[in-house]
Amino acid sequence: MLHDNLSINEAGHLTLGGVDTVKMAEKYGTPLYLLDEDRVRENCRTYLTAMKEYFGGGSGPLLASKALSFKGIYRIAKEEGMRTDLVSLGEMFTAHAAGFPLDRAYFHGNNKTDRDIETAMEYGVGTFAVDNREELYAIEEIAARRGIRQNILLRLSPGIDPHTQEKISTGKVDSKFGTAIETGQAEELTKEALSLPHVSLLGFHCHVGSQIFEETPFTDAADIMLAFMACMRDKYGFTASVLNLGGGFGVRYTESDPVIDYRANIRLVAEHVKARCAEYDFPMPEVLMEPGRSIVADAGVTLYTVGSVKTITGYKSYVSVDGGMPDNPRYALYASRYTVELASNMHAPRDFVATVAGRCCESGDLIGEDMTMARPSRGDILAVLVTGAYNFSMASNYNRIPRAPLVLLSEGTDRIGVAGESYEDLYRLDV
Amino acid sequence: MLHDNLSINEAGHLTLGGVDTVKMAEKYGTPLYLLDEDRVRENCRTYLTAMKEYFGGGSGPLLASKALSFKGIYRIAKEEGMRTDLVSLGEMFTAHAAGFPLDRAYFHGNNKTDRDIETAMEYGVGTFAVDNREELYAIEEIAARRGIRQNILLRLSPGIDPHTQEKISTGKVDSKFGTAIETGQAEELTKEALSLPHVSLLGFHCHVGSQIFEETPFTDAADIMLAFMACMRDKYGFTASVLNLGGGFGVRYTESDPVIDYRANIRLVAEHVKARCAEYDFPMPEVLMEPGRSIVADAGVTLYTVGSVKTITGYKSYVSVDGGMPDNPRYALYASRYTVELASNMHAPRDFVATVAGRCCESGDLIGEDMTMARPSRGDILAVLVTGAYNFSMASNYNRIPRAPLVLLSEGTDRIGVAGESYEDLYRLDV
Repeated sequence: MLHDNLSINEAGHLTLGGVDTVKMAEKYGTPLYLLDEDRVRENCRTYLTAMKEYFGGGSGPLLASKALSFKGIYRIAKEEGMRTDLVSLGEMFTAHAAGFPLDRAYFHGNNKTDRDIETAMEYGVGTFAVDNREELYAIEEIAARRGIRQNILLRLSPGIDPHTQEKISTGKVDSKFGTAIETGQAEELTKEALSLPHVSLLGFHCHVGSQIFEETPFTDAADIMLAFMACMRDKYGFTASVLNLGGGFGVRYTESDPVIDYRANIRLVAEHVKARCAEYDFPMPEVLMEPGRSIVADAGVTLYTVGSVKTITGYKSYVSVDGGMPDNPRYALYASRYTVELASNMHAPRDFVATVAGRCCESGDLIGEDMTMARPSRGDILAVLVTGAYNFSMASNYNRIPRAPLVLLSEGTDRIGVAGESYEDLYRLDV
Repeated sequence: MLHDNLSINEAGHLTLGGVDTVKMAEKYGTPLYLLDEDRVRENCRTYLTAMKEYFGGGSGPLLASKALSFKGIYRIAKEEGMRTDLVSLGEMFTAHAAGFPLDRAYFHGNNKTDRDIETAMEYGVGTFAVDNREELYAIEEIAARRGIRQNILLRLSPGIDPHTQEKISTGKVDSKFGTAIETGQAEELTKEALSLPHVSLLGFHCHVGSQIFEETPFTDAADIMLAFMACMRDKYGFTASVLNLGGGFGVRYTESDPVIDYRANIRLVAEHVKARCAEYDFPMPEVLMEPGRSIVADAGVTLYTVGSVKTITGYKSYVSVDGGMPDNPRYALYASRYTVELASNMHAPRDFVATVAGRCCESGDLIGEDMTMARPSRGDILAVLVTGAYNFSMASNYNRIPRAPLVLLSEGTDRIGVAGESYEDLYRLDV
């Protein structure tokens, strides 16, 4: 199977974390998000252990909230000793409601409003990643008014193209995020930050993109960031103590994606960073990474019920399911590739190729094209694998379809993490 | 201005339906959806009047729910004498809760579950547009069990490429929707439908795509559909009484889009249909269309507050706002083009070109690239025009951002149509 938390039981059903997925579909209905909590914890520990071991000091991962944000994930993150990043007050209040200590949170985003800044300070969010000049001054002003000194990082754009698709490439100079090193604007912003009395500049943040399968984009980014940090020390006497490399490693969605050894990759990045620091005679900073996808994606499976199997004579076949872009917009947004399994009959031959279509009144509402599977029939349970990241968090009510429940699986047991929406929920706020 | 419900008042502010948009931003906060109810009604009347006049009989438009579904829109539709299409029980329950008579509703979609079918029958939905064979038999079986005869249309794919972009082209033979005429499968399905005792086949449905600016895709589709209808009469003695041409006309989003005369286009389609019917000696059917975008799009404006204006030296400028893909995913999905205005200073020269970026932690979260506007500053109100369709209905809580309120404007007054979500709403269903 694609990941080792997936298997087949004696009934011929797909299991996730040892739990029969077809039984889950019967118990909770479809569409249904399943999340293997034990796998989430295992992924957290991989990053925590390897980053501590190879980078040393206070280095470690922050859970990237955008990949999956609900109360349960912050409880897990807290128990595992993870820090987290936040990009909105919604994520902050969710983490807070789950008892997550906000001093271990980093407030990201390219558009923090005054209210965001004020509220995040009120709730004691530990560190702000400052995106731009207006925001720096807004933070300074609000911190001054509150009589505090706010810890900050500056988000810089290192000018790296991580050779991934455009929409998830975030480290190029031409980016909505951060301040460019190449243009001299990052140096200006650093000088300004150092001059302000109510912010305390800890270091720098960058993010080279998502779904990265090798260490080189991170080491390339580290080269640029460390050169910049050495330059800031030499010119302004400022020795940054934090380097946030952003992002995490990629995830295997299909058989054609490589198997990634996160630990080995973290070791390579750490060795590289240490060597570069030695070269610059720069004290090893606390290194942070922000894995989201690689913490939660392979813990997730989405279950659907098949509605029809349509073969257009001479063209191709369509399998339609009772969910789609409202619960997983990633094909519509990025043409993302997934793996499907006929969960209810895993021993049937995988000899059928079809486009899997969602139920929305929209041609682009597809789960994938040319997907290989065992031929299903109306009523069968189809599983889409590796849906733990950017599915629930991106879900909409398009076509007024209620959002699916999310069920947590742990040690063979199941419990609701997020209840499904009712039809009444859909018009609860309509006047 | 782009549409005649937009203007500038003495304060130099953008107005929609005569209402000062900046005052609305102050009153309700941003992001904010505004919807000009009077314009929605006017658009309904254009279709209702022209279709009655030119097609005659019971012909008329159905409001396409997917473009914008909330209780208020069904009240307006009911008052204006519109019918509606529905694609989910969520849309059905919303319409029902608003007092919309469901016998005037058409149940669409390519994946109706048994529960959908059962519930829609229980609530008396007038007509089902049947997508495929499995669904036809499911409807027959459930109608038999309930002891009723359900009115149906069959959704066919006429094999038209409307020369619009792929994701919103729905009438091609290779489509997730409907049953192909070209392959002979539509004829088979018609024979089967005619043989079933608990369904009453009224006619046929097709949909050639969205954002169509001329009458020809509709007349081309009508040609194929009427030829098929004449053939079914000649071979099986079945004279269809309903022809649903799907969709509506396109909408002007930017100055480079054409101005469309809906009335004139409806007249052209009607003349064409009448001539073709005369040719086949086929009784003029009741013709239905399904405008959604052209009913609500130009009634909508979204207001944002600007957070930063960033010029990357030697590259380009970014304006970031306090919303984005959670309230309007259309650029991320389709690279849709919009027009922006600096609502708070409409007399300022429009001499600034920038990418307008949303606040999400995602590079693809943009409102548009290379947009021309007056140069804004942090705190200014930016308006995105023509957002009435597929914005609120596609909204998500990505990055746990609460959904914006929707405010209805009518005759100079404002009232909440959908309340904004609170932060607590975001984790209300989290366990």
